[in-house]
Amino acid sequence: MAPLTPRVVVPVDVKKKPWEQKLPLHNRWHPDIPAVADVTEGEVFRVEMVDWTGGRVGDDNSAEDIKSLDLTITHYLSGPLRVVDSKGIPAKPGDLLMVEICNLGPLPGDEWGYTATFDRENGGGFLTDHFPCATKAIWYFEGIYAYSPHIPGVRFPGLAHPGIVGTAPSMELLCIWNEREKELAENGIGLLKLCEVLHQRPLANLPTAENCLLGMINEGTPEWKKIADEAARTIPGRENGGNCDIKNLSRGSKVYLPVFVEGANLSTGDMHFSQGDGEVSFCGAIEMSGFLELKCEIIRDGMREYLTPMGPTVLHVSPIFEIGPVEPRFSEWLVFEGISVDEAGRQHFLDATVAYKRAVLNAIDYLSKFGYSKEQAYLLLSCCPCEGRISGIVDSPNAVATLAIPTSIFDQDIRPRSGKVPAGPRVLKRLPDVLRCTYDGNLPTTQNPCGSM
Amino acid sequence: MAPLTPRVVVPVDVKKKPWEQKLPLHNRWHPDIPAVADVTEGEVFRVEMVDWTGGRVGDDNSAEDIKSLDLTITHYLSGPLRVVDSKGIPAKPGDLLMVEICNLGPLPGDEWGYTATFDRENGGGFLTDHFPCATKAIWYFEGIYAYSPHIPGVRFPGLAHPGIVGTAPSMELLCIWNEREKELAENGIGLLKLCEVLHQRPLANLPTAENCLLGMINEGTPEWKKIADEAARTIPGRENGGNCDIKNLSRGSKVYLPVFVEGANLSTGDMHFSQGDGEVSFCGAIEMSGFLELKCEIIRDGMREYLTPMGPTVLHVSPIFEIGPVEPRFSEWLVFEGISVDEAGRQHFLDATVAYKRAVLNAIDYLSKFGYSKEQAYLLLSCCPCEGRISGIVDSPNAVATLAIPTSIFDQDIRPRSGKVPAGPRVLKRLPDVLRCTYDGNLPTTQNPCGSM
Amino acid sequence: MAPLTPRVVVPVDVKKKPWEQKLPLHNRWHPDIPAVADVTEGEVFRVEMVDWTGGRVGDDNSAEDIKSLDLTITHYLSGPLRVVDSKGIPAKPGDLLMVEICNLGPLPGDEWGYTATFDRENGGGFLTDHFPCATKAIWYFEGIYAYSPHIPGVRFPGLAHPGIVGTAPSMELLCIWNEREKELAENGIGLLKLCEVLHQRPLANLPTAENCLLGMINEGTPEWKKIADEAARTIPGRENGGNCDIKNLSRGSKVYLPVFVEGANLSTGDMHFSQGDGEVSFCGAIEMSGFLELKCEIIRDGMREYLTPMGPTVLHVSPIFEIGPVEPRFSEWLVFEGISVDEAGRQHFLDATVAYKRAVLNAIDYLSKFGYSKEQAYLLLSCCPCEGRISGIVDSPNAVATLAIPTSIFDQDIRPRSGKVPAGPRVLKRLPDVLRCTYDGNLPTTQNPCGSM
Amino acid sequence: MAPLTPRVVVPVDVKKKPWEQKLPLHNRWHPDIPAVADVTEGEVFRVEMVDWTGGRVGDDNSAEDIKSLDLTITHYLSGPLRVVDSKGIPAKPGDLLMVEICNLGPLPGDEWGYTATFDRENGGGFLTDHFPCATKAIWYFEGIYAYSPHIPGVRFPGLAHPGIVGTAPSMELLCIWNEREKELAENGIGLLKLCEVLHQRPLANLPTAENCLLGMINEGTPEWKKIADEAARTIPGRENGGNCDIKNLSRGSKVYLPVFVEGANLSTGDMHFSQGDGEVSFCGAIEMSGFLELKCEIIRDGMREYLTPMGPTVLHVSPIFEIGPVEPRFSEWLVFEGISVDEAGRQHFLDATVAYKRAVLNAIDYLSKFGYSKEQAYLLLSCCPCEGRISGIVDSPNAVATLAIPTSIFDQDIRPRSGKVPAGPRVLKRLPDVLRCTYDGNLPTTQNPCGSM
Repeated sequence: MAPLTPRVVVPVDVKKKPWEQKLPLHNRWHPDIPAVADVTEGEVFRVEMVDWTGGRVGDDNSAEDIKSLDLTITHYLSGPLRVVDSKGIPAKPGDLLMVEICNLGPLPGDEWGYTATFDRENGGGFLTDHFPCATKAIWYFEGIYAYSPHIPGVRFPGLAHPGIVGTAPSMELLCIWNEREKELAENGIGLLKLCEVLHQRPLANLPTAENCLLGMINEGTPEWKKIADEAARTIPGRENGGNCDIKNLSRGSKVYLPVFVEGANLSTGDMHFSQGDGEVSFCGAIEMSGFLELKCEIIRDGMREYLTPMGPTVLHVSPIFEIGPVEPRFSEWLVFEGISVDEAGRQHFLDATVAYKRAVLNAIDYLSKFGYSKEQAYLLLSCCPCEGRISGIVDSPNAVATLAIPTSIFDQDIRPRSGKVPAGPRVLKRLPDVLRCTYDGNLPTTQNPCGSM
Repeated sequence: MAPLTPRVVVPVDVKKKPWEQKLPLHNRWHPDIPAVADVTEGEVFRVEMVDWTGGRVGDDNSAEDIKSLDLTITHYLSGPLRVVDSKGIPAKPGDLLMVEICNLGPLPGDEWGYTATFDRENGGGFLTDHFPCATKAIWYFEGIYAYSPHIPGVRFPGLAHPGIVGTAPSMELLCIWNEREKELAENGIGLLKLCEVLHQRPLANLPTAENCLLGMINEGTPEWKKIADEAARTIPGRENGGNCDIKNLSRGSKVYLPVFVEGANLSTGDMHFSQGDGEVSFCGAIEMSGFLELKCEIIRDGMREYLTPMGPTVLHVSPIFEIGPVEPRFSEWLVFEGISVDEAGRQHFLDATVAYKRAVLNAIDYLSKFGYSKEQAYLLLSCCPCEGRISGIVDSPNAVATLAIPTSIFDQDIRPRSGKVPAGPRVLKRLPDVLRCTYDGNLPTTQNPCGSM
Repeated sequence: MAPLTPRVVVPVDVKKKPWEQKLPLHNRWHPDIPAVADVTEGEVFRVEMVDWTGGRVGDDNSAEDIKSLDLTITHYLSGPLRVVDSKGIPAKPGDLLMVEICNLGPLPGDEWGYTATFDRENGGGFLTDHFPCATKAIWYFEGIYAYSPHIPGVRFPGLAHPGIVGTAPSMELLCIWNEREKELAENGIGLLKLCEVLHQRPLANLPTAENCLLGMINEGTPEWKKIADEAARTIPGRENGGNCDIKNLSRGSKVYLPVFVEGANLSTGDMHFSQGDGEVSFCGAIEMSGFLELKCEIIRDGMREYLTPMGPTVLHVSPIFEIGPVEPRFSEWLVFEGISVDEAGRQHFLDATVAYKRAVLNAIDYLSKFGYSKEQAYLLLSCCPCEGRISGIVDSPNAVATLAIPTSIFDQDIRPRSGKVPAGPRVLKRLPDVLRCTYDGNLPTTQNPCGSM
Repeated sequence: MAPLTPRVVVPVDVKKKPWEQKLPLHNRWHPDIPAVADVTEGEVFRVEMVDWTGGRVGDDNSAEDIKSLDLTITHYLSGPLRVVDSKGIPAKPGDLLMVEICNLGPLPGDEWGYTATFDRENGGGFLTDHFPCATKAIWYFEGIYAYSPHIPGVRFPGLAHPGIVGTAPSMELLCIWNEREKELAENGIGLLKLCEVLHQRPLANLPTAENCLLGMINEGTPEWKKIADEAARTIPGRENGGNCDIKNLSRGSKVYLPVFVEGANLSTGDMHFSQGDGEVSFCGAIEMSGFLELKCEIIRDGMREYLTPMGPTVLHVSPIFEIGPVEPRFSEWLVFEGISVDEAGRQHFLDATVAYKRAVLNAIDYLSKFGYSKEQAYLLLSCCPCEGRISGIVDSPNAVATLAIPTSIFDQDIRPRSGKVPAGPRVLKRLPDVLRCTYDGNLPTTQNPCGSM
């Protein structure tokens, strides 16, 4: 007889604060954050996670919590977990850690989530110049389906996934991160320093001790101080995986993570009930608390065997993912295109970011013809299972990006049709809208010259 | 009784030169290129097309034709076709033209194609700094499947599609194109003028009378001269559709194109047997001659009804696509990730183009561990049905792009596996490689500072 | 704020006996079994269920419990549930009850199941003349995946579903059932009385008070006695749904059940982690305890609107099902064919049952060439996600049935291949087998003349 | 350079009669029908085929041709083809012949088909007691799509396939066929002799020289006479493949056929543009002329290696099929159930044929509520891509069969919905119906006692 139920290696209680959990959480990447538990190769185990904000966003009727959200406090991760083989020998630097997602979902009793855009002065989002307000939509789950009182007329099955899954960096890799991001923050690239001024947000978020949570390292100790000053923020995805936000990384998927420290020190967090490619509104998935049931395998020497460094050191590697057959499938898609000409009509050069921005804007405007507000469409495209593709990246000067939306998530037929089309909006009665705060800042009077922002 | 067989409105003979075809071809966009035929709403009709080079690339054992290819001669398009409704009233500016792809394929008797990279001094490609040589692989078709003597061990079903489908621009739209591309070519954007010097290729290809083919307009006439000086090149996708290279635009798909001139003046070309998202090697699909069986519907006033201008004029619109249920489907995918840190280790800011470049490079290196040369992997990822996704575009400073490869196209299991992995390459015997020319230019001694190129 | 978590309307405790549960279970269909709870249209609610035997089959190393299983005790159902609309008005006879399966799965802490064949003298199975022994295989769940120590080399995602979902019959419908089944049991049809003798099993299981469990009706009371003598057994599917064993009735599916009594009186049970079409080994799914999260909608007058009686009365109807987009999908299938010629070489006439028996036998023999025992293959085909199709039913005298197996559930390539095929079995080392009891009965010396049994 | 275009080994001209073709056709199975051409392992070749009637059904406005069709003349097959390996050594008895379907489709210029039911006195069909008239619907093809003027409101992509693909039987196998079918025809099985009387059709179609076409054997010669008296009819599927009517046997599929005679002698015919599982109306697919592009591989000794005889001799084998990833996929299905209780309300015992009949009848009645005539629904379910499943075959006394229809083939939403349902038929205006002849026979006054017919 096998043990029937996965061992819960990291429990969380969503009624408690992140720093009150039985096993302490962390919100930085650093090799010296101690493992909170051991897991053994082949064992199926369960990790529970608070939502990325640790409960600071409420299931209520206001977006004020979003507007004032302190973004230095992101993301609360569960772990690190030290991975050992069946003989007790830990994963070693140079190994590859295979993490299979056997199951996952919302935490029982906490079956809801939210999608939001930040205020332009506090975080912004991919389209913040168009949508400067803080907004929020609440989603409720009916089993595998999500629906929102703030975005009526859509209901879709979730492709739940962890936004963040990563191993701890080595000290050497951490230094590489800090140096390259500091260089960007301080000197920018191209015109980007100008952009920072216009956008009110830094080009990179450098280490800071502010709101730093380091698991079992007590705040205020010298050890805490040292690590807090060095530890990398969790916002971007990097060589260790991290915040990669791959929307299909759901049940049955596998992640192959490079191992940089003994034991691998695996951390997970930022659970999403569903996300669109790009997670465009920034707080853009259906953010929730949740659980993962995982199984690990150590591929000894797998980094050398399977990964090729792409940069000055052997540490410049990337994880690999394997998407399995177990996911919702859609048959029909409506596809919006963007080219790398920005909203001012200016031509950029093979810039996929500009092209994708255009594709998303085109889709938002299209959906607004079916009774949705543009904010509703923006949040929806951020969290529904839409696909963002780089369709053409070589035909100068235009990159072509596409955004494909599965048509069956809507309760109306959203395809273009001839005849019988009412002149006005298709939905005439007043529908609920997203929760919204006012924007108190100024919008740039001239078009932002930075195509890629 | 209905007519059983689609009417062939544009026949081509691949044994003849592009300018010798019964109905003349064209390789520019201009409102004054006359329609070669009328088609009626609801009618299924057939359009045949030469390959994009008009037969200048051979089914032979050399890449010399690729190295010396005159790129001013692209692409040969069939059409324009004037679309009228059942009463004979043509499509009008402001309408939306729905074009359904009822069927498509290679031309009988010409069932082969090629994938290639251009020499870095003559066109280049997405990864030209890494792969500066001209290379070529020939593909043969076994019904719906393609295989290549130059890339052994793979065989996959084609998702055949037209690389180019578009309507004629109005004069006003054409002026917008020419002005914005001229601005880019002359003044660049950000650091991009520097890039142009380093890359030996222009940032945009402006109108030129050289090698200009304008259908029924005889070369050398005053009319020809005027149009040739104004007409837009066909390389980039734009507001009229054009070279959008959407790999899933296959059987059962629909294209909704804005109409800018009376009759719509629909043109198609650049048939692909298969393509990966991004078409990264530039001449990157399996390029072939082919046929389309199309059916049109005119959605009167559809531009106003369904499209929203995104720019200074009402002409800044984008086409919409509808992808249907009829395509090969794959269950298992291996996914490679790239972040916006370039090969020199330098940090860029939310640059999806850099991230995608990294994802492609990672995938190429990975495949090279299974016995493929890197050139083979580059060409393969350019033409096989792989998906390029913008996974995260908001987690500064790193955009995350992913490249997903269906595992079943390989005749070996390419997933990472523990144990029993041979130290050396998995395929020890000498395998055929791509056709390759030498590169006679110089590679940049310093890293290219332009992230997006 | 909506209630986040589905209300548990029927809880079960698998450590208790079926008759000790908080809300009593039942194992018969009868209009007078009282509802144990009300549920409201639109509400998401949770029903928990013991496995079909109520815990009489163990996670152990013996098939003795299967051999001696008392089959008069089947199946333990949860419910009945009385369904009311938002105004409290119950579903009425003539309505259609839509039941959406929002979620489902094994009960936490009880993540295992079993597949078995009964002894030929005690229940048998589709192929009992070939496999007369009682056998058993245990399955463990790793999240969405199942694997068995008794059938090595396969692992597959579950398409979990309730084997039984049904409404209570009216008294009139119950009489129809009892009469037609009694007629069969007493007089047979064609040669079938002979078959019953040969097979040691009755042609139909008529009402019996033995082991009858009637929910809130106390055993031994006059009311119990009356109902027990009339109530229909739960073994076959009938007009009310019941034991329909539709393997794709998983997450996101909907069932449209006719309503025969006020309140509909919905019952569910017999949870399966996975099943192949036909459930051929009889105890043939991966049987488990489990939960359902359901949502109901009452379609008033829906029976008249959507169902057509097919028989002498208006009650001769059938439920309708809607299978949604949310299920594991497989790309490649190996398909075995059977025609209506039996194992003795005798020709039957368009008999799909004989044809399907042949298809299953062909598949079993084929898999036995890859190292599996035939009992392993039989159990596997009974519970893995294979498809049983009626391919041709008109080309006399042969019906053609097919059994399609998704190839990716195996850890070896099971497709026929030329060359390099070892002469002997592909797996030479001794592998674990199913648990097996001896068969003490006699096999028929002459071939069973009843094609359909 | 490889040859680009498949060699046409069997051309047909649909303007000529079957016996006037360049390479003669045949309509029987016999080892002595000479091969008309050789094909080599690995070569892609093309076989063209007339429709199964050889052009006797017209694209016209009458079903009279169906009513009077002489059914002794079926089916016209192309071939036999002798298969040799690359050294010229033919396939041998005991080998397995793998036939890959690289491509297939209608013949250019003949892009139409028909679906029909025969008169009850001349062939009948699965539901002939309910639908005794001869009926016909014409289908036209728009590329991969089919639509019918006689069944409005549906349009679907074809899953084209050959209804018949088979190898020649050996003399020994032929004798087995003839003996077992003669036994059935003469003595019936169970009550079936009675059925034959009621149904006006024979239980099996025995060899007859009438209308016998034997390829290169000239009619009337002694050789012809001998073969014609022995040769098996092509109606049923058998050990050699033959008329197996597997609807998914389309592009990318593989057939593994046993080889009984030297050279294998492969024949194909009975092309279908689309078919539902069961092909219930008998002339039930979208019947057409067509072409196949095939590639063969000889698996030496593959019969012994992969097939297990299931009967008294080593010849009692069945072919195997491999269905690939290249087919239209549907996301949503409406599923109708049938149990083995017949239309008279009589209980049968685990009879999948009765259950499937009930499922089909239920689906027909359901569709008739959406404006279709029952004849339209019957023909539609016979030819559209619906799936017929054996869902439960062990829960005595009821077999459960299901028929699943992809909802997206309809231009209206056919799912049950509450509210706003019109009292009458959904389509009020008079729609076109199928072509129909009168039925001049008598329907049985008592219910047919033969469940399986």
